[in-house]
Amino acid sequence: MSSFEKKTSPQNAVLAVGSVAFDSIRTPSGKADRILGGSANYFSLAASLFTNINLVGIVGSDFPKDHFEVLRSRGIDLKGLETASGQTFHWVGEYGSDLNEAKTLSTFLNVFEHFNPKLPEAYRDSRYVFLANIDPDLQRSVHAQTRKPEFVACDTMNFWITGKKASLVKTLELVDLLTINEGEAFLLSEKNNVIDAAAAIRGLGPKAVVVKRGEYGALLFSDHGIFSAPALPLATVKDPTGAGDTFAGGMIGYIAHEDAGADLFRDDEILRRAVIFGSVMASFTVEDFGLSNLLRVTPAQVQERYRQFLRMTRF
Amino acid sequence: MSSFEKKTSPQNAVLAVGSVAFDSIRTPSGKADRILGGSANYFSLAASLFTNINLVGIVGSDFPKDHFEVLRSRGIDLKGLETASGQTFHWVGEYGSDLNEAKTLSTFLNVFEHFNPKLPEAYRDSRYVFLANIDPDLQRSVHAQTRKPEFVACDTMNFWITGKKASLVKTLELVDLLTINEGEAFLLSEKNNVIDAAAAIRGLGPKAVVVKRGEYGALLFSDHGIFSAPALPLATVKDPTGAGDTFAGGMIGYIAHEDAGADLFRDDEILRRAVIFGSVMASFTVEDFGLSNLLRVTPAQVQERYRQFLRMTRF
Repeated sequence: MSSFEKKTSPQNAVLAVGSVAFDSIRTPSGKADRILGGSANYFSLAASLFTNINLVGIVGSDFPKDHFEVLRSRGIDLKGLETASGQTFHWVGEYGSDLNEAKTLSTFLNVFEHFNPKLPEAYRDSRYVFLANIDPDLQRSVHAQTRKPEFVACDTMNFWITGKKASLVKTLELVDLLTINEGEAFLLSEKNNVIDAAAAIRGLGPKAVVVKRGEYGALLFSDHGIFSAPALPLATVKDPTGAGDTFAGGMIGYIAHEDAGADLFRDDEILRRAVIFGSVMASFTVEDFGLSNLLRVTPAQVQERYRQFLRMTRF
Repeated sequence: MSSFEKKTSPQNAVLAVGSVAFDSIRTPSGKADRILGGSANYFSLAASLFTNINLVGIVGSDFPKDHFEVLRSRGIDLKGLETASGQTFHWVGEYGSDLNEAKTLSTFLNVFEHFNPKLPEAYRDSRYVFLANIDPDLQRSVHAQTRKPEFVACDTMNFWITGKKASLVKTLELVDLLTINEGEAFLLSEKNNVIDAAAAIRGLGPKAVVVKRGEYGALLFSDHGIFSAPALPLATVKDPTGAGDTFAGGMIGYIAHEDAGADLFRDDEILRRAVIFGSVMASFTVEDFGLSNLLRVTPAQVQERYRQFLRMTRF
């Protein structure tokens, strides 16, 4: 199960909405100015090793056109990526010695401020949907334009939990799987124990919840109990930006690849392997700045790292 | 491998030196005054499910004699437990919402201040030795009184790393296995990455290092690579006191039980299962205050929880 060939059929394609951005990042390992990032970029590049992607997002006229070609060459469809006049979303952040927590220094929403996602007709039949961490109103607007999604996943963050909780709760009613950081799971559920938090969140709609714990791995909660996945200990962590979106990309890309339909939640075998593929992809992302490693990684490297996870956990 | 019967032969007995204490503890779940604790208590009670124990320590004349009977009834030999005139070691501490970190409010060393461990003749042939977190001079003094230990493990803490590093380094030269908290591994190694820290510590002597990460589990580093063990997510964590000593008890108790001799480090199969038994035992301890749960737990419960770890990690 650690070997896979990318499935390029439209059947397996994942509709993904999220941000496409410039990031300016400072970490203890160095800094990078205005490099390509955004949740949709990280998600799509990770998922594109497993399936094709229908990308929904917005960029400004300053966005480098050659990156479009890079994405297209990986089976990431850009009909849903709008180019608006103005500047691309720009995030400025830094990490201290605790690489699990980003400090936002500035957020320039730019063209993202008036983003009103419109799905190209061809996207509306997407069976797999990922709503990255954006305004929950927009997450639902995208969902409403799909005709018969069979599997819907989303992510969110403290900003929406604090500022738009009622809307977020409505989104969660539509969702099969939520991926969320542990601290944000506590914030959303108003619980301070991960078992209670996951149960409360599953009570809002999601059949499964993945609680992400950064370098400590992730926990999957479903009807079939708890699956605990480690993170791969790494000698070098240069930049944690995008780790969570990359994780979701590996996870949902693999789920769409397996295409189990209604059987997905009958047991948690695919979900467990999907969590590992998410962890594998995230481990590559954090080893270098921005998208660098994600643009380089090969299926053979992904499979080898999957086997590393197997070896690391067997007893 | 999840089923075991206690081995009661002197061959398998573990010599353990550490503190026997009263603890006064406040946690978010409540408080307890002058309850029984100390590293040697936690270690021995956990290990006693797997093997017999030769206990070395000191208590004051205020120590409740009925606890001696409890320990003896579990195959914990007390010939090495000295009763001195004066008061028993007393630790006062509290935990905030971060249960991974204890705050020491007071330490009354009492009779422990002039503890000079003397091994009963019958203990000197112990093949398995655990040097709990005490002054590294005393750890070496105990080691020097043994004749032919085949496996020596120890624990330590920031207090000794900061205050007696040269002595601690000498102890580590004698040690096969070190169990240590992650933050303390960074402090000892002067590295800030767990892979680098473990490599540096193994360079000081130990063939294997277990880095303990509290609720996030533990990492085993040996010649055979990395093993990542989760902690069991628990609905209730009342008191983390003694979790690390209990972990060591489950781990070293199981190692002595398996009694692999020179083959122990040929691969890491026994070590891996030992880490899981350590995690299993620690999961019981933290669910209630002090030694309460450790005094109640049955082999059948230990085996069932071991199977929970198996189910939680399979993919």
